[in-house]
Amino acid sequence: MKIGILGYGNLGRGVECAIKQNDDMELAAVFTRRDPASVKILTEGVPVYAAADFEAHASEIDVLILCGGSATDLPEQTPVYASLCNVIDSFDTHARIPEHFANVDAAAKKSGHTALISCGWDPGMFSLNRCYANAILPCGKDYTFWGKGVSQGHSDAIRRVPGVKNGKQYTIPVQEALDAVRSGSNPELTTRQKHTRECFVVPEEGADLAQIEKTIKEMPNYFSDYDTTVHFITEEELAANHSGIPHGGFVFRTGATGWNLENKHVIEYNLKLDSNPEFTSSVIVAYARAIGRLAAEGQTGCKTVFDIAPAYLSSMSAEELRAHLL
Amino acid sequence: MKIGILGYGNLGRGVECAIKQNDDMELAAVFTRRDPASVKILTEGVPVYAAADFEAHASEIDVLILCGGSATDLPEQTPVYASLCNVIDSFDTHARIPEHFANVDAAAKKSGHTALISCGWDPGMFSLNRCYANAILPCGKDYTFWGKGVSQGHSDAIRRVPGVKNGKQYTIPVQEALDAVRSGSNPELTTRQKHTRECFVVPEEGADLAQIEKTIKEMPNYFSDYDTTVHFITEEELAANHSGIPHGGFVFRTGATGWNLENKHVIEYNLKLDSNPEFTSSVIVAYARAIGRLAAEGQTGCKTVFDIAPAYLSSMSAEELRAHLL
Repeated sequence: MKIGILGYGNLGRGVECAIKQNDDMELAAVFTRRDPASVKILTEGVPVYAAADFEAHASEIDVLILCGGSATDLPEQTPVYASLCNVIDSFDTHARIPEHFANVDAAAKKSGHTALISCGWDPGMFSLNRCYANAILPCGKDYTFWGKGVSQGHSDAIRRVPGVKNGKQYTIPVQEALDAVRSGSNPELTTRQKHTRECFVVPEEGADLAQIEKTIKEMPNYFSDYDTTVHFITEEELAANHSGIPHGGFVFRTGATGWNLENKHVIEYNLKLDSNPEFTSSVIVAYARAIGRLAAEGQTGCKTVFDIAPAYLSSMSAEELRAHLL
Repeated sequence: MKIGILGYGNLGRGVECAIKQNDDMELAAVFTRRDPASVKILTEGVPVYAAADFEAHASEIDVLILCGGSATDLPEQTPVYASLCNVIDSFDTHARIPEHFANVDAAAKKSGHTALISCGWDPGMFSLNRCYANAILPCGKDYTFWGKGVSQGHSDAIRRVPGVKNGKQYTIPVQEALDAVRSGSNPELTTRQKHTRECFVVPEEGADLAQIEKTIKEMPNYFSDYDTTVHFITEEELAANHSGIPHGGFVFRTGATGWNLENKHVIEYNLKLDSNPEFTSSVIVAYARAIGRLAAEGQTGCKTVFDIAPAYLSSMSAEELRAHLL
């Protein structure tokens, strides 16, 4: 299966690495909005083209993986490229998924292509686990926790604070909240009880540290509803100790069965990831296999992870899956 | 959707309870090999028929759930009933799944029905998690742990020991092994390092306790490869403290991504279940919804959990799933 990558940042590089692990896949081309001559990729012998030249190369690709951002890139790109080839994106603005789905579905159906949106781990694997667990335990309660991990949005928010030169924010689930959920006690948890936020901030020289800390801690939406800790560190410490992009999280459903709901059950799915973009890429590449297969079967339009049978993701045959993984 | 139950033991009763939680489902009939007049079910107004009379009532049912055992009931029953209606079973003899699949598939295809085998949590939800996680992390290692929970097979084995009146066996995952797997260190674990076995035994009066303990601990296949603890208790203690059928377990895949496999990831799925048969039943009932829908679409033959897109399990519409669970 021939895979194209559009956008060569952290996610694009992660896709490139994931393709290397899958013998039935091949990186066919990378497309960039930068000057192609300025983009050095890891895989030898694979061309880098200008995104503007995509149409001339569309036939060289079975599935195009869109590695842009959800804020402005994907809402525009995914419908456009779904008109030209089979596509996958990792659109993660949950509230705008129905609208994005409709746009991509219309474009893909019109052109006869297959598309998958919102692929990754949340949305993605976490969504799948919510779906399965809700179907199994209709009388129950869902909990999702994120972290410990780096939140790009919150790190950006810190860096916009006056006097801040650089910074990184970790979202951390509260252990007592995890324990309460695992106990099956179905706790009601406030935003503050579920997660804490820890900030590592490099101040500009002479900046008012107390003012920076106050501004961060009182920032509405981002920090004011959380117990937030602010550490001031040097640029060197930031580079040495906080250059990774780890993440992870937990999806629980707790529920009851029995004629009088007398038996309790806890379903837990959790991820501990050294690299958020590389894990996201790995999920996307598994789904690229599925989209390639669905396209070959003639299924067109936009899909989500809910619409795809697990066997489509696997390089194993149906017989191998039944013999070894069932 | 009209559901039939064949076999009214722990699993059949669990299915009955699960149907009650799903508004789009209805228990249509229970079929038994016992005298129907002797079987009292929980749901009012639902008929209990003799299994021998099934054909006369097949048209009253959309999906029949087979609640017999894997050793002798299901290998015979599932192909027979797949000739008469849409069916689901929980066949869990892993080594014989390929053969069972072939038999059920042939019968279902010939009669134009839809069948699902090996549904529950292992095989079932654990299999799904192995499949997804293997597709996402091709460079990695799988670990499955069971428990803490009651093993029916090992409890039966204890009860066959001379001098034993009654008994129950718990399979317990070793905490150090779980911790080692969670750390991402990819340990090689022996059978003994993964699980311990704890036995609660009611001896017959005057029995040789030391001999019972020795016989249990040295029993090949069942106990000799494990660190086993034997507690002697009274029938009253057994009834008071060990009458439940709890179970659960853990599926891990640990793997690496990155150009040089430099980033580690841990995927964990775990279940903590007060009632093994009721949870298994809840999974089966969600898949009964899927099988009813696939049958209505005209898809015939035998399926496994790998072949079914998650959306088929849910009572929500595709729009609701995208808006609320994605």
